Amino acid sequence: MTNPTLAETPNKKHHVVIIGAGFGGLACAKALGDTEIEVTVIDRRNHNLFQPLLYQVATAALSPADISEPIRRTLARYRNIRVVLAEVTGIDAVAQEVKLSDGIAIGYDRLVIATGSEYNYFGHDDWRRAAPGLKSVHEARQIRHHLLLAFEKAERATDDAEKRALLTSVVIGGGPTGVEMAGAVSELGRFMIGRDFRNLDPSFLRVILLEAGPRILSSFPEDLARYAQDYLEGIGVEVLTATPVEAIATDHVVFNGTKLPASCIVWGAGVKASPAGTWLGLEGKPGARIPVDPDLQVKDHPFIYAIGDTAAALGPDDKPLPALAQVAKQQGHYLGKALCQTLTKGTKPEAFRFRNRGNTAVIGRNAAIFDFGRWQLKGRLAWLLWAIVHVYLLVNFEKRILVSIQWIWRYLTSQRGARLIEEDAVPSTVRDLPDRGNVEASRLQERSGEEM
Amino acid sequence: MTNPTLAETPNKKHHVVIIGAGFGGLACAKALGDTEIEVTVIDRRNHNLFQPLLYQVATAALSPADISEPIRRTLARYRNIRVVLAEVTGIDAVAQEVKLSDGIAIGYDRLVIATGSEYNYFGHDDWRRAAPGLKSVHEARQIRHHLLLAFEKAERATDDAEKRALLTSVVIGGGPTGVEMAGAVSELGRFMIGRDFRNLDPSFLRVILLEAGPRILSSFPEDLARYAQDYLEGIGVEVLTATPVEAIATDHVVFNGTKLPASCIVWGAGVKASPAGTWLGLEGKPGARIPVDPDLQVKDHPFIYAIGDTAAALGPDDKPLPALAQVAKQQGHYLGKALCQTLTKGTKPEAFRFRNRGNTAVIGRNAAIFDFGRWQLKGRLAWLLWAIVHVYLLVNFEKRILVSIQWIWRYLTSQRGARLIEEDAVPSTVRDLPDRGNVEASRLQERSGEEM
Repeated sequence: MTNPTLAETPNKKHHVVIIGAGFGGLACAKALGDTEIEVTVIDRRNHNLFQPLLYQVATAALSPADISEPIRRTLARYRNIRVVLAEVTGIDAVAQEVKLSDGIAIGYDRLVIATGSEYNYFGHDDWRRAAPGLKSVHEARQIRHHLLLAFEKAERATDDAEKRALLTSVVIGGGPTGVEMAGAVSELGRFMIGRDFRNLDPSFLRVILLEAGPRILSSFPEDLARYAQDYLEGIGVEVLTATPVEAIATDHVVFNGTKLPASCIVWGAGVKASPAGTWLGLEGKPGARIPVDPDLQVKDHPFIYAIGDTAAALGPDDKPLPALAQVAKQQGHYLGKALCQTLTKGTKPEAFRFRNRGNTAVIGRNAAIFDFGRWQLKGRLAWLLWAIVHVYLLVNFEKRILVSIQWIWRYLTSQRGARLIEEDAVPSTVRDLPDRGNVEASRLQERSGEEM
Repeated sequence: MTNPTLAETPNKKHHVVIIGAGFGGLACAKALGDTEIEVTVIDRRNHNLFQPLLYQVATAALSPADISEPIRRTLARYRNIRVVLAEVTGIDAVAQEVKLSDGIAIGYDRLVIATGSEYNYFGHDDWRRAAPGLKSVHEARQIRHHLLLAFEKAERATDDAEKRALLTSVVIGGGPTGVEMAGAVSELGRFMIGRDFRNLDPSFLRVILLEAGPRILSSFPEDLARYAQDYLEGIGVEVLTATPVEAIATDHVVFNGTKLPASCIVWGAGVKASPAGTWLGLEGKPGARIPVDPDLQVKDHPFIYAIGDTAAALGPDDKPLPALAQVAKQQGHYLGKALCQTLTKGTKPEAFRFRNRGNTAVIGRNAAIFDFGRWQLKGRLAWLLWAIVHVYLLVNFEKRILVSIQWIWRYLTSQRGARLIEEDAVPSTVRDLPDRGNVEASRLQERSGEEM
């Protein structure tokens, strides 16, 4: 493998460009912080989002700002790092330039692609409007507004069938995100009916979790998945496995050949890599991750690297590493250090090795699962550990305090937080929710699941 | 004055309908809570907004959910109160019905109009898009996004004139809102240039406060206003009094016959009553408050009452009471108790009397003013008192804790909070901010000011 370096021209400052400031991109930038290397971080958002807690924004437990941090603030203390808010449109690997949507090109010596993943609608991109996923603050707010508005509409509906439809939520995909979302929607619904909407009949409330595969949480051991399913069913979630979704429209979901009227529909059925591969002219099916060498260099592109969800790095078992935050973070840190070594000392670093920190999903109040490989944990202790780990993973001390207080408060009072429907979301008449576009029925064959 | 009551039909439950769940409407509903009277609260938002702190959302210090609370939650403990999320389109005073935009009519025995106020663009409603006010979460987020995006654009601009324009903010109106906003924008700008945007030249940063009247803060004593102006000038705000705005467009403001290129333009130059008066067929110029009797009953409408910003109740000096939260709150509480007395006992309550709790405005870190009539306070102690009072006025214990912690944190670290530009606000290329519509030049004659 060629591994050219610019170390032989010591007077010229090396320039590393990182596209994407998620877990991977930020870890990479930090590892390059306060070095002699110039670093440019490009992102189309001004903030880094802590996606593992985004479902809590969607279910009105936290505010968007609690789980996001301006990228400039995170990187402010490194004098060698520049942040650019821009949309990347392409890469010229020959000229070694990244092209931005406003026509500007940024040259690089080394390029790191850390553009993450997006939800995979398996060819049904028209379903996206009816069933948003959980990848951005915008989508989380969309789901929250839609959930809360449905309750307001149900309260004033006169027809029982209409009430039932409004109080029916369908979560598609039984991976960690789908499980977390279904549990939280069910808890929020039961809470709201108990306190804020006492006129509504609790038996009208339905939360359905659809999974195309034989069981939910396929990336977890079977007994943990079994525990999760039992718990979900205990709090009123109907878990339907081996049930692929057949069609989605603004007001219903079709599965098992039957049309179920529903109001809040959430997509968590699969992710695909960002389209960064097409910038490099890589072939392969859409949504495929970019193949990389053991040192995370993109094959046949000696100056370009890829990390995180968008890269297909192989684990020790020769299977691609899962699309998890911890993988992206470890790869980013490794690559930052490796680039520093390559560019300043001219030596070749060791290959990347992933260290599994454990896999977790939260199911509800007092219930979570942890899989550390050798040993496992479930129930209240796992939930406490989950909460501690997630507070710790938040980006700074202030957010940790704020989120801790809100969680402790909710736990003690069973209250809910940010139940805010903003003005731009309220239609002029509450009964006429904006039509999210009718989607034709067609069958979804792919297996739904959290992993790629 | 006729004051008919329904107390003679004891078996029929009286029904009070309250339109608007701001400070006035909520206070009225609470005073009627847990009585034998049926109460319906109608609002077009699902939340009550603590407007005095909205400027902190606009300047990225707090999150919307920190200062808003679902109306249902606030009123959940009163079994006799029903909450309806709907837009009111009219009142049929003869049939005693409120008409909603979805065609439904709600009958009432007594009606309370508490619909508040909105910004007065003095006939230039086309200025609204270029210069949003501070009345809703939506507008606050709009201003915040626009401020933060302007810095991002300035960082990448190559032309100095363009940079200067992007870093110029104009706040129109020297009342408390305008003063608070100008101070906060200046502090945020200086903070961001110092930390996040170190490439920008601090001398390009301009914040201009335009006031048409002879001085700012005309509702405060002159020496407090002088102190505020000196303080603002000390933190870099250019205060221009006797300077009416002549035109506003998306990228500039015209005053003194000169066109000043500017990026963030905020309107705080005057409020007018909500258009509820037209529902009653009341004549008078648009934006006029509804005239009410000393017991807050609308003249010639024996079953209808008006409180807060939308009502013109006269004070002891025969001048209309100011459009302040404390007036609305006291009137709401008074009216709730009075209705209860009238409807259940059939007796006539005493007239409403306003008790002045003091008037305050915050100017910056460590600087606020308080006017209690007989004595006054300014500087750091006033600022501390301002902070304590505002935390106390927040709707519940959890919000008090959350806001306190964020304020203490910011005070100790000089950090800023919710600097979040959400996806839907980021244009595909950062340089092309959406055109907010060009507005023709024309002269604004009315005096700008916070009061009506």
